[in-house]
Amino acid sequence: MNNRLKLFINEHLDYINRELEYQVERLVAPHTLKESMLYSLRAGGKRIRPLFVVAVSEMFNYKQKEVYTVGAAVEMIHTYSLIHDDLPSMDNDDLRRGKPTNHVVFGEAMATLAGDALNTLAFGVLARMENISADKKVELINLLSVASGAEGMVGGQVLDLDGENRQLNLSELEQVHLNKTGAILRFSIEAGAVLSDATMEARKALIEYARHIGLAFQIQDDILDVEGTSEQLGKTAGKDEESNKSTYPALLTLDGAKQKLNEHYQYALNALDNLSEDTTLLREFANYIISRNN
Amino acid sequence: MNNRLKLFINEHLDYINRELEYQVERLVAPHTLKESMLYSLRAGGKRIRPLFVVAVSEMFNYKQKEVYTVGAAVEMIHTYSLIHDDLPSMDNDDLRRGKPTNHVVFGEAMATLAGDALNTLAFGVLARMENISADKKVELINLLSVASGAEGMVGGQVLDLDGENRQLNLSELEQVHLNKTGAILRFSIEAGAVLSDATMEARKALIEYARHIGLAFQIQDDILDVEGTSEQLGKTAGKDEESNKSTYPALLTLDGAKQKLNEHYQYALNALDNLSEDTTLLREFANYIISRNN
Repeated sequence: MNNRLKLFINEHLDYINRELEYQVERLVAPHTLKESMLYSLRAGGKRIRPLFVVAVSEMFNYKQKEVYTVGAAVEMIHTYSLIHDDLPSMDNDDLRRGKPTNHVVFGEAMATLAGDALNTLAFGVLARMENISADKKVELINLLSVASGAEGMVGGQVLDLDGENRQLNLSELEQVHLNKTGAILRFSIEAGAVLSDATMEARKALIEYARHIGLAFQIQDDILDVEGTSEQLGKTAGKDEESNKSTYPALLTLDGAKQKLNEHYQYALNALDNLSEDTTLLREFANYIISRNN
Repeated sequence: MNNRLKLFINEHLDYINRELEYQVERLVAPHTLKESMLYSLRAGGKRIRPLFVVAVSEMFNYKQKEVYTVGAAVEMIHTYSLIHDDLPSMDNDDLRRGKPTNHVVFGEAMATLAGDALNTLAFGVLARMENISADKKVELINLLSVASGAEGMVGGQVLDLDGENRQLNLSELEQVHLNKTGAILRFSIEAGAVLSDATMEARKALIEYARHIGLAFQIQDDILDVEGTSEQLGKTAGKDEESNKSTYPALLTLDGAKQKLNEHYQYALNALDNLSEDTTLLREFANYIISRNN
């Protein structure tokens, strides 16, 4: 990982984690429910989405504490989607980030409810932010709802289920990922632009960057499933091939997938050329995403 | 059902149903996902929550089309909670409102995702309303998030799961229901007050009314589970006793439950005495809730 990115993560990771803890701890709610929510929030995610909110905001010189709240909201959505995705009726995963999945520890009913509560809480924390105009909150809530719902992440999960039964073509596979993982990554990046009152032109460039980063992220995920070990990944490796899942390596061969990954990396960097701000950090982020090994 | 209430429902039910259809139909999302969402929305609920939004708004002379959007949002939350509640890992119900439950028709994975999408969509439709100030939207979104999340409905479902393993006392049982069903009923009633700029005093009286209506609603549910037939209820009757569930009849005997029901009915009517508006419709609503047979 490049040096500037490492410093940036060191500077902000604790604040992101503390905001997540705070937003759940403060709830007047059954103890086991909060434990179940916190268990998955604490399970050691890389916090890429909240970090993007902070990075983009900072690029436009917006440095208020609300960046962590927006980051926490998107991490709650990401975490709830993992909890539900791991359920026996969905992907049936026992292991996530090297730890037993939520339903293995708390049971399926509680895992379902903890996911529901995190989904709902994400919108609540956005609505309750201080020092942000109501107009901006409404814009963020609308963007998050579109990104995470039927038109975004959940829709992508449905397309993904569909892709387990038949071989998707490249354009269908892109559609899955633009929705399933791309939409909330795009939200994270766009939210930074909303918070910092970036121009519509800058926002457009960032959305283009987000699109290619999102696809690159997913292609690297597919490649890691082939090349990585379960220990490295903290989840069962080789699962895609076993379940006949539509993936980039399956469609394009491993070399073809790596070439595609590099293409999207280049497109992401090109999009940043349209910005006059210092984009070093976002470039390092892109580099990290294509070279990470877990 | 009293005449005024019947006329009121006839006047508004179609608009509520059309708004629900519209908000799902307009989504650019996978066809099967939309079908699964619409299946449960169309499954013939009584629309009590949206009708409360409209009734309270109308009492304060607010008659804009946004009442149906807020009503649709709360019905989406109610419907998603039923879909998830019926899952095999939760209550494991095959029948709801006389029809096969969502997962029986669409499978568990799709039912989970359709529920998630409805939960998310509820906040999106509130954020996208026209002719409502951003401040008011934020207030409604915050209220709905609290009412439906860990501090409200979902928290109540967790307490309810807990109550399947041991006998709750009356105060614990009240807490379950104030959260599980009471919180979003209260939201529906409070939302009408928010939309129509009711005074804080009026709002306080309505919240008191909502509290007793919510408890009365649940007690009548428990009584119907004992006295009703599966045909009448559209779901399996007698299930509570069979599963040793904590209920009002189990705690207080059937006669004691009926007396409690009547007490809450009276308290609800008393709360309305504090309002100078015409409360006839809300009184008829209360009467309907305690005398309904399904």
